[in-house]
Amino acid sequence: MNQAPVAVFDSGVGGLTVVNALRRELPDENILYLGDTARVPYGGKTQRTIERYSEEISRMLVGEGAKMIVVACNTASALALPHLREILSVDVEGVIAPGVRAALATTRSGHIAIMGTKATIGSGAYERALCEARSDIQVTSVPCPLLVPLIEEGLLEDEVTDMVLSRYLAPLRESGADTLVLGCTHYPLLARAISRCVGEKLTLVDSAANCAHAVAETLNRNGLRASSSQSGKLRLGFTDPPDRFLEVAGRVLGLDTTGAELRHVPPLD
Amino acid sequence: MNQAPVAVFDSGVGGLTVVNALRRELPDENILYLGDTARVPYGGKTQRTIERYSEEISRMLVGEGAKMIVVACNTASALALPHLREILSVDVEGVIAPGVRAALATTRSGHIAIMGTKATIGSGAYERALCEARSDIQVTSVPCPLLVPLIEEGLLEDEVTDMVLSRYLAPLRESGADTLVLGCTHYPLLARAISRCVGEKLTLVDSAANCAHAVAETLNRNGLRASSSQSGKLRLGFTDPPDRFLEVAGRVLGLDTTGAELRHVPPLD
Repeated sequence: MNQAPVAVFDSGVGGLTVVNALRRELPDENILYLGDTARVPYGGKTQRTIERYSEEISRMLVGEGAKMIVVACNTASALALPHLREILSVDVEGVIAPGVRAALATTRSGHIAIMGTKATIGSGAYERALCEARSDIQVTSVPCPLLVPLIEEGLLEDEVTDMVLSRYLAPLRESGADTLVLGCTHYPLLARAISRCVGEKLTLVDSAANCAHAVAETLNRNGLRASSSQSGKLRLGFTDPPDRFLEVAGRVLGLDTTGAELRHVPPLD
Repeated sequence: MNQAPVAVFDSGVGGLTVVNALRRELPDENILYLGDTARVPYGGKTQRTIERYSEEISRMLVGEGAKMIVVACNTASALALPHLREILSVDVEGVIAPGVRAALATTRSGHIAIMGTKATIGSGAYERALCEARSDIQVTSVPCPLLVPLIEEGLLEDEVTDMVLSRYLAPLRESGADTLVLGCTHYPLLARAISRCVGEKLTLVDSAANCAHAVAETLNRNGLRASSSQSGKLRLGFTDPPDRFLEVAGRVLGLDTTGAELRHVPPLD
């Protein structure tokens, strides 16, 4: 039994979709969330920069007693996970492997589409993981660079968003893919608009629930689960003061975001 | 005579529009440019964060011998200029005051519209400066949060950009405003699309040329002009490795961007 927090980080508010899944799967665990809104978005930046930001944040969270790090950001999972696993003393779970497992469990045609930021798609992390798991799988990757800015603007139901989605995703309708991985933790907030765009031929898969399962398994395996004598606390921190959209996201996800704090991430030496 | 560089910074590539104007106005000056692409965009972030980023960059540039700092970013000019002037030993010029002078010289109706990022518009910096200069002036402010992401995506001529512009700007056509200030150094890259959207009723004004005049005046006043025996050099640095869009921007602006370097901005103590 271990009351130390599970720490979760993302470039912004998108990782709250993972927090939501963790709260359902592990209601007794204390959760410490860090959204790097002062440097959001990560999706257009390079591996070097994303590794540095991820390391700074993870070292801070481990320094505050985190018993495990959850990288609730596909861009950082795609580009910084090996680096974090090399340098950190605690377990690190990302969102790519759980998303891959969910996609493989869903597809019947064996053709899976992935949508993500430019950095996530450019990393090839999903293709590699899917093909390692099943060599006969066909993958179509779709970089969607404008979605995070549109979501951070709160345009969840909007004709501009629909037009951008249509440009990115309409070609998938006739592609033969039957499964669409929401390869960015922001995208579940657009699930309705995405479903409207791709129609019923594709099943949407997000990694949040599968990521929460993976975290539970890791904690169980290491004997690190919290005692169930009290319900877990959620502590939210952001590197730029939270704005109106945090409320919107909180409402969509059913999370109380009123106590969110401003945090400073110490740079590496 | 002083061969020390004039240092120019922006959150990304937008400030190159100011570099372009400086090269025309002051061809003998060495210019040192820093684009903070690892933390772009600034426009949705808060004053506290923008002041910190601006201070870190300015201290680095002054440490490298800059004889003057040009804040070629409207968001940082709107929110961090007083702070920078307080802490730095060299002159600091921003883009707001030059844009205001250009707008006042252009308007006949006395009604000026400003487009900018959420942070720039929210700061009220343009309204204050315009009303201080001429109390009878009428100002309409239009926050345009999606334009920097669209421009950084290279969608300079695109129906999505046109739709977003139309939403932001179409109401201006019948407003009585006759002058439209491009209150973000990225926006001159969209000048054609913006003109198409607002029609001929509004004259577009950008601060780049006026900012370059102001820099020349300051250097002259302080006896800091470079000798004209050789043409000035341009050194470009970015905090995230430069990508394809830097080339696009360079081509649009006629700047050679091939020697751009990756730079690290030291954090404050």
